[in-house]
Amino acid sequence: MPTISQRGEQMPSSPIRKLVPFAEAAKKKGVKVYHLNIGQPDIETPKPVLDAVRHSEFKILEYSHSAGFESYRRKLVTYYDRFNIAVNHNQIIVTTGGSEAIIFAFMACLDPGDEVIVPEPFYANYNGFAVEAEIKIKTITSSIETGFALPAMADFEKAITPRTKAIMICNPNNPTGYLYSKEEMEVLKQLCLKYNLFLFSDEAYREFCYTGEHFSAMNLEGMENNVILMDTISKRYSACGGRVGAFVTKNQQVLDAVMKFAQARLSPPTFAQIAGEAAVDLPADYFDGIKAEYLSRRDILVKMLNDIPGVFCPNPGGAFYAMARLPIDDSDKFCQWILESFSYEGQTVMMAPATGFYSTPGLGKNEVRLAYVLNTTDISHAMVCLEKALEVYPGKISK
Amino acid sequence: MPTISQRGEQMPSSPIRKLVPFAEAAKKKGVKVYHLNIGQPDIETPKPVLDAVRHSEFKILEYSHSAGFESYRRKLVTYYDRFNIAVNHNQIIVTTGGSEAIIFAFMACLDPGDEVIVPEPFYANYNGFAVEAEIKIKTITSSIETGFALPAMADFEKAITPRTKAIMICNPNNPTGYLYSKEEMEVLKQLCLKYNLFLFSDEAYREFCYTGEHFSAMNLEGMENNVILMDTISKRYSACGGRVGAFVTKNQQVLDAVMKFAQARLSPPTFAQIAGEAAVDLPADYFDGIKAEYLSRRDILVKMLNDIPGVFCPNPGGAFYAMARLPIDDSDKFCQWILESFSYEGQTVMMAPATGFYSTPGLGKNEVRLAYVLNTTDISHAMVCLEKALEVYPGKISK
Repeated sequence: MPTISQRGEQMPSSPIRKLVPFAEAAKKKGVKVYHLNIGQPDIETPKPVLDAVRHSEFKILEYSHSAGFESYRRKLVTYYDRFNIAVNHNQIIVTTGGSEAIIFAFMACLDPGDEVIVPEPFYANYNGFAVEAEIKIKTITSSIETGFALPAMADFEKAITPRTKAIMICNPNNPTGYLYSKEEMEVLKQLCLKYNLFLFSDEAYREFCYTGEHFSAMNLEGMENNVILMDTISKRYSACGGRVGAFVTKNQQVLDAVMKFAQARLSPPTFAQIAGEAAVDLPADYFDGIKAEYLSRRDILVKMLNDIPGVFCPNPGGAFYAMARLPIDDSDKFCQWILESFSYEGQTVMMAPATGFYSTPGLGKNEVRLAYVLNTTDISHAMVCLEKALEVYPGKISK
Repeated sequence: MPTISQRGEQMPSSPIRKLVPFAEAAKKKGVKVYHLNIGQPDIETPKPVLDAVRHSEFKILEYSHSAGFESYRRKLVTYYDRFNIAVNHNQIIVTTGGSEAIIFAFMACLDPGDEVIVPEPFYANYNGFAVEAEIKIKTITSSIETGFALPAMADFEKAITPRTKAIMICNPNNPTGYLYSKEEMEVLKQLCLKYNLFLFSDEAYREFCYTGEHFSAMNLEGMENNVILMDTISKRYSACGGRVGAFVTKNQQVLDAVMKFAQARLSPPTFAQIAGEAAVDLPADYFDGIKAEYLSRRDILVKMLNDIPGVFCPNPGGAFYAMARLPIDDSDKFCQWILESFSYEGQTVMMAPATGFYSTPGLGKNEVRLAYVLNTTDISHAMVCLEKALEVYPGKISK
């Protein structure tokens, strides 16, 4: 029998999906499980966005241009213009989700063995894409004590080697919710110019900023050839299943290379491009309501977390995630235990152990990520469960 | 300025898309261009397939399961059952087009430097996926003289090295239209069992067989752990823009590995899975009409080609492509010239130079691929153009 590749062996499992069987078992026992573990919002996809697909009238579901429909790319130009991001439609390549934008960046900018520096904790799937592209993710650690602010410039410089080709950030951040300031972005600019690096900027949560304005990497002056923006409609319009994202850069060499990868896979999905194009025409106040909703969720989540004895949760500035430090021995064990062996009034909570977001062994063992993708009532119930669970968890650690 | 990767440099351009600017220029001059260059059928997507999406009623465009909706996978089980392919829904991973199924196979079964043997001419995008996965495609040549039948077993054996991990076929074949016989499939089985190789079988055109029954690699007994089926709804239902395919195997190790790649990119597109699920319920006679249409197109194309002095086109057994040998010096030059410098009654033809489908230098220089994706009237007009063009082409070669 032929054997799978070493790459296939090394490919990491999703740290979140490992717990799915325990959640399913809990549900089978009749326990209600609050899913704070994944970034699948309960917000409805805007009706005009779905209607654009449902009212479409084409007769052949054809390939689009490999870079995406020109009409959609032109529409995206007007979208980015609202953030003073000045790009033309030839600087946008529509991708199959934000995921593909990340793979394209890794493939087109790094060779096997090359390194990208990422502040940890970071979005766990970057690891998988790194295995596919045979590149190395080198992390520098950001700390819950500072709310996961950008590590010092000196920390980056210590990590840079001759193989370093890029720095990668997610802003606002998944999993920490941290919103990078203009000053922090300027530090990244200095680093990239000094060491001739790409800056990969994953801005999937651009619209969801609560403590200040979003400062896009695309607006760093003098970085036109360094910055690559990875984008997606998934979170912005609660359209995760569409699988439409964007790869945006002003670097023509990179665009030319990425177009070859885009042509090999023929085209991004047609239906969701139609949805994405309609979404750009949503009324300007659409995000006001969504943001207000996420903000109230964040506020109740963070307050209730910090009210639990021994728990610390910095206030996230954006996205819809919070990282909390819990008085526990091991977040993997705890997140399994709370599904497997605990319930309060027939309810329990699913969370993501933070270990999956760090690459430094041992880090994240007393942290969990919570996605505030449920309504405030559900979040309150979930937090009561968490508090009760921490009272009886056998691996509780008291200072 | 940071530079792109060597991989980005090495990534091949689409051999077909290179001609697009010349086609666009011809159209600007007012010349009608018959597109026989790509596999984008003019057949309408079945209405019930599009209606399933248009009448869908969900409110949130959510991620599906990373392996695809369970309901869709269960439906696909009944689809495959019609071909006596006995699989369960856990042996199917829904992919983003057939393209992703190929990438998953390369990634999960081969390591960088490993080799896959492919009869040439072959689908040019395999080259791009090979660059992404850092693997090597080794070709053995099939000949227009035999209608592109499977090369002899000895030819395969000569190409096998310690790095060979797989043989890959497309059946019926793109670009040749060749339909592999049961006997030829048995030869591949012997090879794979003898040398412990995977058999990657791209069966995108399963429904379109004219000279015999399709024999799926999945029906090779004793090959359960060797065979990987790459599939797609693109051609089957004229749904190229959906970007939904399938990775199918009974090899559990491979399934486990591929699931990790599937989880990293979250999910395949939701809308097109709904379309694909509805498509399985099309009436049994749906393909009769489509096949009859393609058959009449094939017949007129092949007859008119062979009636042109100096042209030879073997009769393809399946898919909707034909390879023709022309009395020309260089198919790249000819395909550009016919767009750039020729028209007959205000019309011309776009074809794919066969050089892009061979990896052996020099092969395919007097061959072109024609996709019979237009109606018979258009095909007739196109063939008249081709005949007239060959009368005046400066690089004509007369035996």
